[in-house]
Amino acid sequence: MVNEAEKKGIKIFKLNVGDPDLIPPKQLLQNIKKYNKPNLGYAPSPGIAEHTASWAKYYGSFGIKIKPENIIPTVGGAEAILLAMMAVADVGDELIVFEPLYTSYKGFAAMADINLVPVTLKVENNFALPTEAEIVSKITSKTKAIVIINPNNPTGNVLTKPEIERVIKIAKEHNLFIISDETYREIVFLGKPSSLLQFESAKDLAIIVDSVSKRFSCPGARVGCVASFNQDIIWSILKFAMIRLSVPTLEQYGLVPLLNNSKPYTKKITAEYKKRRDVVVAALQKMPGVFCQIPQGAFYLIVKLPVDNSENFIKWLLTEFNFGKKTLLLTPTAEFYITPNQGQNEVRIAYVLNSQKLKEAMVVLQKALEQYPGKK
Amino acid sequence: MVNEAEKKGIKIFKLNVGDPDLIPPKQLLQNIKKYNKPNLGYAPSPGIAEHTASWAKYYGSFGIKIKPENIIPTVGGAEAILLAMMAVADVGDELIVFEPLYTSYKGFAAMADINLVPVTLKVENNFALPTEAEIVSKITSKTKAIVIINPNNPTGNVLTKPEIERVIKIAKEHNLFIISDETYREIVFLGKPSSLLQFESAKDLAIIVDSVSKRFSCPGARVGCVASFNQDIIWSILKFAMIRLSVPTLEQYGLVPLLNNSKPYTKKITAEYKKRRDVVVAALQKMPGVFCQIPQGAFYLIVKLPVDNSENFIKWLLTEFNFGKKTLLLTPTAEFYITPNQGQNEVRIAYVLNSQKLKEAMVVLQKALEQYPGKK
Repeated sequence: MVNEAEKKGIKIFKLNVGDPDLIPPKQLLQNIKKYNKPNLGYAPSPGIAEHTASWAKYYGSFGIKIKPENIIPTVGGAEAILLAMMAVADVGDELIVFEPLYTSYKGFAAMADINLVPVTLKVENNFALPTEAEIVSKITSKTKAIVIINPNNPTGNVLTKPEIERVIKIAKEHNLFIISDETYREIVFLGKPSSLLQFESAKDLAIIVDSVSKRFSCPGARVGCVASFNQDIIWSILKFAMIRLSVPTLEQYGLVPLLNNSKPYTKKITAEYKKRRDVVVAALQKMPGVFCQIPQGAFYLIVKLPVDNSENFIKWLLTEFNFGKKTLLLTPTAEFYITPNQGQNEVRIAYVLNSQKLKEAMVVLQKALEQYPGKK
Repeated sequence: MVNEAEKKGIKIFKLNVGDPDLIPPKQLLQNIKKYNKPNLGYAPSPGIAEHTASWAKYYGSFGIKIKPENIIPTVGGAEAILLAMMAVADVGDELIVFEPLYTSYKGFAAMADINLVPVTLKVENNFALPTEAEIVSKITSKTKAIVIINPNNPTGNVLTKPEIERVIKIAKEHNLFIISDETYREIVFLGKPSSLLQFESAKDLAIIVDSVSKRFSCPGARVGCVASFNQDIIWSILKFAMIRLSVPTLEQYGLVPLLNNSKPYTKKITAEYKKRRDVVVAALQKMPGVFCQIPQGAFYLIVKLPVDNSENFIKWLLTEFNFGKKTLLLTPTAEFYITPNQGQNEVRIAYVLNSQKLKEAMVVLQKALEQYPGKK
C-alpha cells in the first residue's frame, strides 16, 4: 500500500517505525573507520574488553557500580530481550507483562514458547500501573519474572518511583525476576534518567535489557547488552551468548567513545524529542474527539481516535485519502496487545520526523479525521 | 588454564577455535569505510537490497538461479542455524543429525526445545554416511528435517554425490526438509564447491545455512543467510527475522563486492588450507598410535589419539606439559557428540595457523604423546 501510494506521487509522513531520523554522534563512524587491524575475527562471547568497560563506565555515569563482567553485549536490544527471557523462563513458563507492549516481546515469547500474561493498562489512565493486588492476581506457580519497559515503547510512559517500588515489592515477595528494558533510558522529559540497577532492593532480581540504538540514533549498529548484578543470570546469558559466538566486532569498537561520554549527545536529542512531543501533543489536543495524555519519555505516544477501527483508518489513509498529495503512516495499536480486541481505535505515533514535518503531518491527520467515512 | 600457562611464559598453539588467521579481502574494510550516509538506521528485515542481490549473484556463480527475495540475511551462520531449525520444527519436534556435529546445533536445539536425533559416524570409516536403512530407522512422526553440514565442521569431511542423493531420497520419501549448512562451501580440496541448491530433486526441501565468516575470513562481520527456493520456508524465516529487526547495516554494504566476485579470494585460501592440511596429516600419520583420515574440506580434522581421555590429555597439555616452552590447545571431541561417551580419545584440530607454526605444533604434539602418563 505504501509503494502504491508513493507511485501515485503521494508523500507519506512515516510515523510508524521507531527508526530515529537523527544523525548519530560523528565519533561512531569515525571510530569504526579507524579500525586498523588486518583481520576481522570473532569478538569474545563476553564482549570485547574495551567495549564492556565502556558500558561499565556508562552505567557509572548514573552512579551504578557494575563490573564489565556483569554486562554481556548482545545483537541489539532485540537479542537482549530474547536472552533475558530465556535466562529466566523455560518452555511453558510465564512472564507478567504490561500491555500495550513492544511487539518483539510477543514474537520472541512465541519463538521460545514462553507465555506472556498481560496486565492491561489504559490510555485514559495515562498507562499507570494498577494496584499491587491486581498485578499479584496474575502470578501463578509458573511465573518467573515481571517485565517492565521504562521509558515505554509503545506508550511513551515513564514509571514513577512508587510504581517501580511496587513492582520490586511484588517481585521480592513472589521470588520473581524483573526484566527492565531501559532502551530509552535517557529520553525522559521530566526528571533524570534512571535505571532499576539504582534500586538497592532490586539488586539480585534486576535484569537490564539495554541498547545503543535509540540513545545514539544508530539502530543499524545492532548493539545492546544484558546487565545484571545476579551472577547466575549472567552465567546463563553467557551460555546462550557462546552458542551464537559474538556481537559484531567493528561496532563494539566504534561505540566505545559514545558509551564513555554519553551525556552531551543524549541531552541534545532528548531536548529535540521533547520539542517534537510538544508539537504533536499540542496539535492532537486540539482535534475534536481525539484523546491522548502527555507522554514523559521515549519518542512514542498512543492516541485514541474517533474512528471505527484504527487498522481500517490506516488502510484508508494509504489507499483513499490524501491532503495536498500528502498522507500518513501510523501503527495500529492492536498489535501491541496480547488480549484480543484491545486498542481497536488507537494508533501509535513515533515522532521520528522534525518539528516542521510533524506540524504538517498533524494538519494532514486532522483533515483525514474530518473526511474519514468510518468516523465515530 | 590458558591464562595460567601464558603467565608462565609458555607459548600455546591454539588449534581449538575455527577463527581464521587469514586476512579478509581488503575490499571489505575499504568498502565499510566508504559508507557515507549520515545516519545508521535499521536495515530492512529481508536485507539491504544491494546485499541480497550480491548473495544472488554469488549463488549464480555456482549456476544457481535464486532470487534475492529467497535469501534472508542473518547475524552470522549462527543465527541462520537457529532460524532454519525454528522454521521447520516446533517444541518437541525432531531433527536427524550426523554426529560428531558442530556444537552450536546442540545449543540452539536446547534453546528451542527441539530434539536432535543423532546418527553416529566413525573416524575409522572416514565419517561416511551409513546406509539408507540406518538413517530411516531414526525417523519418527516428529521428525521434520535432516541436517547436513557440508563440508563438515568438525570432521572436515565432504559428502559424496551418492551420499547427498541418499539424503534427498530419504527426505522426499518421508516428507522432510534438508537443512544444509554450507558455511565452508568453497573450502574443498578435491573437485568443485557445490550446494544442495544445485540438486533439482531437492528444490522444495532444501534450506541452506550460509555464512561469509569462513570463506572471506571475517567471522567478526557476523553476516550469514538462509536461502531456499521454498517460499513457505522463506516467509517463516522472514517472520522470525522481523522480530529481531535487522542484520548490521555496515557489514551488509561492506560484503557486496566480496559476494559479487568471490572466487579469486576463495581459491587462494582454499589452496592455503590444503597446504596446511597436508602438513598436519603428514605429521599425524607418522605418530605411533595416532589415527586420522585425510579430510577433504573445511579446516578441521578429527584425530584419534593413543590417550585414556582426550579431555584429560588437553588439561595435561596446558597444566603440566611443555616442550621448549611450547604447548597446544585442542578441542576434545566429546562435545561434538550427542550420544554420551563418544569420541573419548579424539580431538579436533583446526588448522588456523600457518604451515610453519603447524609443523612446530605437530612436533610439540608428538613429544606430548611420548610423555603423556595416561598413554594407552
